[in-house]
Amino acid sequence: MESHAGPAATPRALPYYVAFSQLLGLIAVATTGAWLGLYRGGIAWQGVLQFNVHPLCMVIGLIFLQGDALLVYRVFRNETKRTTKVLHGLLHVFAFIIALVGLVAVFDYHRKKGYADLYSLHSWCGILAFVLYFVQWLVGFGFFLFPGASFSLRSRYRPQHIFFGATIFLLAVGTALLGLKEALLFKLGAKYSTFEPEGVLANMLGLLLAGFGVTVLYILTRADWKRPPQAEEQALSMDFKTLTEGDSPSSQ
Amino acid sequence: MESHAGPAATPRALPYYVAFSQLLGLIAVATTGAWLGLYRGGIAWQGVLQFNVHPLCMVIGLIFLQGDALLVYRVFRNETKRTTKVLHGLLHVFAFIIALVGLVAVFDYHRKKGYADLYSLHSWCGILAFVLYFVQWLVGFGFFLFPGASFSLRSRYRPQHIFFGATIFLLAVGTALLGLKEALLFKLGAKYSTFEPEGVLANMLGLLLAGFGVTVLYILTRADWKRPPQAEEQALSMDFKTLTEGDSPSSQ
Repeated sequence: MESHAGPAATPRALPYYVAFSQLLGLIAVATTGAWLGLYRGGIAWQGVLQFNVHPLCMVIGLIFLQGDALLVYRVFRNETKRTTKVLHGLLHVFAFIIALVGLVAVFDYHRKKGYADLYSLHSWCGILAFVLYFVQWLVGFGFFLFPGASFSLRSRYRPQHIFFGATIFLLAVGTALLGLKEALLFKLGAKYSTFEPEGVLANMLGLLLAGFGVTVLYILTRADWKRPPQAEEQALSMDFKTLTEGDSPSSQ
Repeated sequence: MESHAGPAATPRALPYYVAFSQLLGLIAVATTGAWLGLYRGGIAWQGVLQFNVHPLCMVIGLIFLQGDALLVYRVFRNETKRTTKVLHGLLHVFAFIIALVGLVAVFDYHRKKGYADLYSLHSWCGILAFVLYFVQWLVGFGFFLFPGASFSLRSRYRPQHIFFGATIFLLAVGTALLGLKEALLFKLGAKYSTFEPEGVLANMLGLLLAGFGVTVLYILTRADWKRPPQAEEQALSMDFKTLTEGDSPSSQ
């Protein structure tokens, strides 16, 4: 077996792309805050302002933190695989909890106001994204962190996990744009077409969110930026393969 | 050099996924037609109905045909590379022309009605998608169909072309959902929350469009479904590499 020991070099351009993604993500979160503060009266857990908890939590949780969780394997290239996995899982837990608060806020607000739930395309896409996110986390935990799954099972599931992870992330970004549009049209109506400052700011927020999504996806999918296998995990996985599948070590 | 001659076997599940994508795409186009026919009075080039040309053309051009153009290399696995390229380029030309008709329809409608242009997030995303689509087509033509580009230049550009192609396609799908939402909110307003039949149909159309996008992306990104290199093009590209980069054929 060839040895791949020692820290692998980080691709030259990767840190700049990661920095750019973080800049876009943080500006998107700040712009969400600015939009809610300047044009929607800020945030609180009671009254009309309770609604505003929803967009802020969703942008922080299901967009910024979810996006960063996807980048963990590209950014932490020389940590042990186990540490990286735990960080990936934990970021998703934080994202999930923050998104849950955001969901509770909007359902509670609707209940108090007597508004109907889950009638719009935004809400259909959003509830789908949230349920798929939860299922993906559970299945991912079962395959990759829980010790039971075999090496070959993990190898077969890994590409599915990555594809559906990226899809759920994109669905979350798309859902945010739909929600933004809904909030604008309900409040501004025909005034939206007069280039009201709130409309222009919210459009820019939409482009920022889409830009963050595209940048994360670019970093995630670029083949030569994938995390290289490390000596430690190669040896472990080989042992594991040998144990679980009965291969002879000499056949490697 | 190893020989890869003869037709490669098509992966077993691929035709089912392709058939499913086509089913979703065609149902989405039919649902767009049904929505416009049942709830918006149909289609014409004058009066209020001119607006309706826009969603129909965009769904057929920038979603259905663009999606199918992305799938050409997965579906036509044993045609010559040149035939496949020409088909890919032609489908994009048809998609572009149909989308252009859709764009002219909405700008012309706005002009006649005295409405403002390009104020909404839908229009910002849409014009971005359309311009990027045009640029991507031109650059793709320059690299892959025009005979000037060297083998190594093509190899380096190919992953970028694929990533940006997929991104533009997803942006088009997201833009369609934003437009759908805009059309619903402008007409239904608060009635949207009473589960009006038009609202429910349009939400389902949104999910169909998103489902088509995800299925196309799945087929496109699945590593073991990529088109295998063929003996013909391998030999050609090697010759070309030899000619342009001065490699000795014996070094292969």
